[in-house]
Amino acid sequence: MGLIVQKFGGSSVANAERVMNVARIVTDTYAKGNDVVVVVSAQGDTTDDLIEKAKEINPNANKREMDMLLTAGEQISIALLSMAIEKLGYKAKSLLGWQAGFNTNSVYGSARIKKVDTKRIKLELQKKHIVVVAGFQGLNKYEDLTTLGRGGSDTSAVAIAAAMQADRCQIFTDVDGVYTADPRKVKGAVKLDEITYDEMLELATLGAQVLNNRSVEMAKKYNVVVEVLSSLERKPGTLVKETVKMEKMLVRGVTADKNVARISIIGVPNIPGIAYKIFGKLAAKNINVDIILQSVGRNDTKDITFTVAGDNAGEALEVLNTLDFLAGKTIECDNENVAKVSAVGAGMETHPGVAAKMFEALFEADINIQMISTSEIKISVLIDKKDADKAVNAVHDAFLPDSAD
Amino acid sequence: MGLIVQKFGGSSVANAERVMNVARIVTDTYAKGNDVVVVVSAQGDTTDDLIEKAKEINPNANKREMDMLLTAGEQISIALLSMAIEKLGYKAKSLLGWQAGFNTNSVYGSARIKKVDTKRIKLELQKKHIVVVAGFQGLNKYEDLTTLGRGGSDTSAVAIAAAMQADRCQIFTDVDGVYTADPRKVKGAVKLDEITYDEMLELATLGAQVLNNRSVEMAKKYNVVVEVLSSLERKPGTLVKETVKMEKMLVRGVTADKNVARISIIGVPNIPGIAYKIFGKLAAKNINVDIILQSVGRNDTKDITFTVAGDNAGEALEVLNTLDFLAGKTIECDNENVAKVSAVGAGMETHPGVAAKMFEALFEADINIQMISTSEIKISVLIDKKDADKAVNAVHDAFLPDSAD
Repeated sequence: MGLIVQKFGGSSVANAERVMNVARIVTDTYAKGNDVVVVVSAQGDTTDDLIEKAKEINPNANKREMDMLLTAGEQISIALLSMAIEKLGYKAKSLLGWQAGFNTNSVYGSARIKKVDTKRIKLELQKKHIVVVAGFQGLNKYEDLTTLGRGGSDTSAVAIAAAMQADRCQIFTDVDGVYTADPRKVKGAVKLDEITYDEMLELATLGAQVLNNRSVEMAKKYNVVVEVLSSLERKPGTLVKETVKMEKMLVRGVTADKNVARISIIGVPNIPGIAYKIFGKLAAKNINVDIILQSVGRNDTKDITFTVAGDNAGEALEVLNTLDFLAGKTIECDNENVAKVSAVGAGMETHPGVAAKMFEALFEADINIQMISTSEIKISVLIDKKDADKAVNAVHDAFLPDSAD
Repeated sequence: MGLIVQKFGGSSVANAERVMNVARIVTDTYAKGNDVVVVVSAQGDTTDDLIEKAKEINPNANKREMDMLLTAGEQISIALLSMAIEKLGYKAKSLLGWQAGFNTNSVYGSARIKKVDTKRIKLELQKKHIVVVAGFQGLNKYEDLTTLGRGGSDTSAVAIAAAMQADRCQIFTDVDGVYTADPRKVKGAVKLDEITYDEMLELATLGAQVLNNRSVEMAKKYNVVVEVLSSLERKPGTLVKETVKMEKMLVRGVTADKNVARISIIGVPNIPGIAYKIFGKLAAKNINVDIILQSVGRNDTKDITFTVAGDNAGEALEVLNTLDFLAGKTIECDNENVAKVSAVGAGMETHPGVAAKMFEALFEADINIQMISTSEIKISVLIDKKDADKAVNAVHDAFLPDSAD
């Protein structure tokens, strides 16, 4: 008995049959005595189809109008899911983002939630309705529709769970939880029962696309217990929460990110403020820089190498080309041949030697390390892309041998 | 220089090419120095497709959820049209029904407009935007989305024109105006330059599906000058207004309505209050009764015959079957073989002999008249459906011979 927020992505509601499947999950949860708020995304390819329609008319469409267009997608989903729930004999009420109280800032296409005013949701729950909320969308101070950007429905669900102090926020996906590594590539990968917010954040950043990072950050901030589980199989998933039961695992997961570009600037003047100017400009363009390596200055110049997401490499190069003090310098970009392999685990914070063990595993697998980055709960290495899967397996075997079948 | 409201139906915005065509009409109007508010319907088959999706999930879907579903259709149209207008170098802003200030009652599926609060529209016009409004939709006092029912976008356009005291409300369709008869069936049919609200109302009721009746009623009430014109050809259409220049036409148009059912109740008790009870019950179910014919009572019974729209025949029979005092009476319904042919014209009000001339024309064409109904500006006859086209031609030739080529 409690309040459960459930979120279903676009593939979970792609057609009538899947919408009915979601309705069954939702009504089963309700029938157990819970209040239920469901957050849904647009059906299957709806968003892509709408983007295509827009491109045909105006490839440079205004972002406000894009948000007006795309928010129609979730509107269709919430109406259909409500009909499906009612078909099963339960009462449902669909609410658009603005009806559900989502106030956002005005950055069309990637708005931030400022506040969720849950008055209407509470009213409908009091009336014993299952409340079906359109994810991904909100309203700004001009009373215009906004969207929250990629993965926005996860964020919508966690935001409602936070604002309503829900007992649990269940994110239904096409996988049944968070694994120690990609099970399609690592034989011994196992599903985790629990994982901390910080570990989940590192894994998400590193390419394990189970949960959107913003939603995990929000869950951490408001201490929302999130469960990642499958919409197709009825079994427990992985809980994401502040502290997890101690296990002997130093490393909770190993992951490879192949969407990486390495950019090197050769012969930068060896004077103060250069790094600040370069990375400040990149940050101003919202380009996240990951691993940074700066050579020890030789004579009066030094080399700076860093990684960005592969998608951002072109834009990053454009930014560098606008910087006067880099004029004439050699700038190299490798967007094809590198990958980042990371081991993540809250356990490593208090256990020295984790990095050494990882490097040893890579050495024994004959894999060359190009760059290294560490945080309290993560060690990442940049390696040749062709070695990525081998590297993940090697590191996984080193830290998680027990999880192999 | 003025304020023009323009309305485009679903077929006018069915694909990217047509959306661009509409954008050109709109921006040409704006470029001539006018403020422009555009009202659009859902694209082409969108509404039908959404209804199909709903039926697949729940054939008896709740009307509130149907409105939530269907309003997504116009939302897509307004975003795309705004993008098209901006592509042509003009500024546009799309507004949903509720953003445009449409307050309605709560009859989901066929809500009535209570008020249009034009604050937001005015604000956007002041900013020199072309304002693109979603037709067919509004918001009720519970802050839930509603739809205005069939032809609702016409009503939306006229309501904005009324509230803003627009100089003209242009309804773009796939015909280029209102004709004296259906030009596909009557060789001599000609386009009218002008027609009164009352004449337009009669024609609309009689099956000339150019303008939705509610929109004409509203235009009459608020004295909005409406123009019906083609979205494909650039030429003047037909003006609908209070008074029109006198012409020698007694009859403005002749039309046939084949969606008619004739229902007869044989041997009703010849006592007071019977008609009231029958037609009161039908009215309570929103079934419009048109021609009514009551036989002179023989002994202590009489026969009552009336017509309703063919679509309503089944429901009308159900209502009659619930009436105790009709139990055991013979009720006949002909939903297949009758049609109603009508001549409409404000001129006939002051000219006796119009009815006689119409009956003569029908007699000479060898057409039997089953029932007759007259109003100040209309004469309708119920005839055999197979004679409908011949009857329209005969009556048209009698009153409008000059318009033949």
